[in-house]
Amino acid sequence: MKNASAWLLLLASGAAHGANPVTPTEIIEAARADEWRAVDPARTLLMTLAQGTVVIELAPRFAPRHVGNIQKLVSQGYFDGLTINRVQDNFVAQWGDPSAKRDIGLAKRTLAPEFTIGAQKDFQRLPDPDPFAPEVGFVDGFAAARDPKAGQTWLAHCYASVGVGRDNAADSGGGSELYAVIGHAPRQLDRNITLVGRVIAGMELLSALPRSLEPGGFFSDPAQGTRIQSIRRGDAKSVKLEALKTDSASFKALIEARRNRRDSWYLRPAGHVDLCNVPLPVRARKP
Amino acid sequence: MKNASAWLLLLASGAAHGANPVTPTEIIEAARADEWRAVDPARTLLMTLAQGTVVIELAPRFAPRHVGNIQKLVSQGYFDGLTINRVQDNFVAQWGDPSAKRDIGLAKRTLAPEFTIGAQKDFQRLPDPDPFAPEVGFVDGFAAARDPKAGQTWLAHCYASVGVGRDNAADSGGGSELYAVIGHAPRQLDRNITLVGRVIAGMELLSALPRSLEPGGFFSDPAQGTRIQSIRRGDAKSVKLEALKTDSASFKALIEARRNRRDSWYLRPAGHVDLCNVPLPVRARKP
Repeated sequence: MKNASAWLLLLASGAAHGANPVTPTEIIEAARADEWRAVDPARTLLMTLAQGTVVIELAPRFAPRHVGNIQKLVSQGYFDGLTINRVQDNFVAQWGDPSAKRDIGLAKRTLAPEFTIGAQKDFQRLPDPDPFAPEVGFVDGFAAARDPKAGQTWLAHCYASVGVGRDNAADSGGGSELYAVIGHAPRQLDRNITLVGRVIAGMELLSALPRSLEPGGFFSDPAQGTRIQSIRRGDAKSVKLEALKTDSASFKALIEARRNRRDSWYLRPAGHVDLCNVPLPVRARKP
Repeated sequence: MKNASAWLLLLASGAAHGANPVTPTEIIEAARADEWRAVDPARTLLMTLAQGTVVIELAPRFAPRHVGNIQKLVSQGYFDGLTINRVQDNFVAQWGDPSAKRDIGLAKRTLAPEFTIGAQKDFQRLPDPDPFAPEVGFVDGFAAARDPKAGQTWLAHCYASVGVGRDNAADSGGGSELYAVIGHAPRQLDRNITLVGRVIAGMELLSALPRSLEPGGFFSDPAQGTRIQSIRRGDAKSVKLEALKTDSASFKALIEARRNRRDSWYLRPAGHVDLCNVPLPVRARKP
């Protein structure tokens, strides 16, 4: 009898899902078509590896000069044939030309840092406190933080964030070395290094790369790293993705479902979600 | 001249490291021999994959019944030839027998949960607030959280934590399915599932496993997962590791160095460290 009741309950709950989605998966599936935005192919990069393709969504609002410079590098085929020469466990996968010998053509080798931008009217604030910033939330589809008193906003270092490697000087990077976060959010990097976007598809190809156990996760010989066949700018033919709008009702519901999980597996809701543990749903665009 | 000065400064700073280590690496290297503890081989499990060996340190103080049951399963060769049948990106790698058909012998299939234990006198508190618990810190070498009012202490879900898979009921797990965290700390699982330890060596073998893109990261056919050659209890011959004591002065210095990075690369110290971003240093024992 106990089992039969549970089974009936499951059916009833299943029938009601359309009206009252509970789990993150249900909420994403129930989102209306107009709550999704097409990912702009012109704002993407495609990294082709033997294993498949990694798609990066760029954040020109936060780092216009670096994004422009990287697009120049990519248009010249700068990264083609280079390797992912650093894979540090629980930290980053990094690629480029560590010897800085490859011709950068019309691009610049270094740029002034783009660590913060001004106040953003469309900042969608998370209800929870954050230990690294006065306020956190989402801007333009990206996880971000802000200091209202200073009038500053910046991208947060989360899993899948993409940034610009640099040396000790703030202005020593330009985009000829890039990294993606493959571990626990290294938020201590916020405002210390320029972020330019995030991986929106194919992240599992970077996260599953063999780690280097050498200092800093650098391969002593970059040739040991995974070869990059090419990095190209995306176009309408190659990038057919859409992302859930971060200012949509479904995204708000998703945040709440992650703050307090109400599906039956959870016995004790956390009452909190880390900025970097809010999923940013992306799917193939429906034809 | 500028370069020559920098070079002299570097030498001076190098000479002073022993006295005043600054970076996490320097602090770990400068730790005194008596600040390290030998990892007790009897409290370890060795998982052998084709790629190498993963060493798990068990936490019997937190989950004595589950640890005992897992040790029984392992002594019977329970996991040998099974697979890592779930690898969900930015979440967990999980192994065992999802069909629950394999004979568990003298072990138990399910146990009452061990989500929390009582107050611990040797709780070493982190100075920073935590969004998921009233206080966090370290107990017995493990990242932990506590609620002083409730008199409860529990292990925190961090990168490399190892836990016991369960179904919806709190008492539906027993150790015949285990998981390791391979992504951003899923702290919402704290007090919802029994943790039994952490990976202390070979984590990079689990984190680099190919992901499954099927729902929940489960391989629809468990045989697609990476084969486990064996899981055995460690012994003095196979486990020669030592871990930095979490109640040592060097560990305190390490925490402070992670809260506020003072090496020259960092331009803006964070003033905070996530519990799960404090490294728990482990090294090969010196002969």
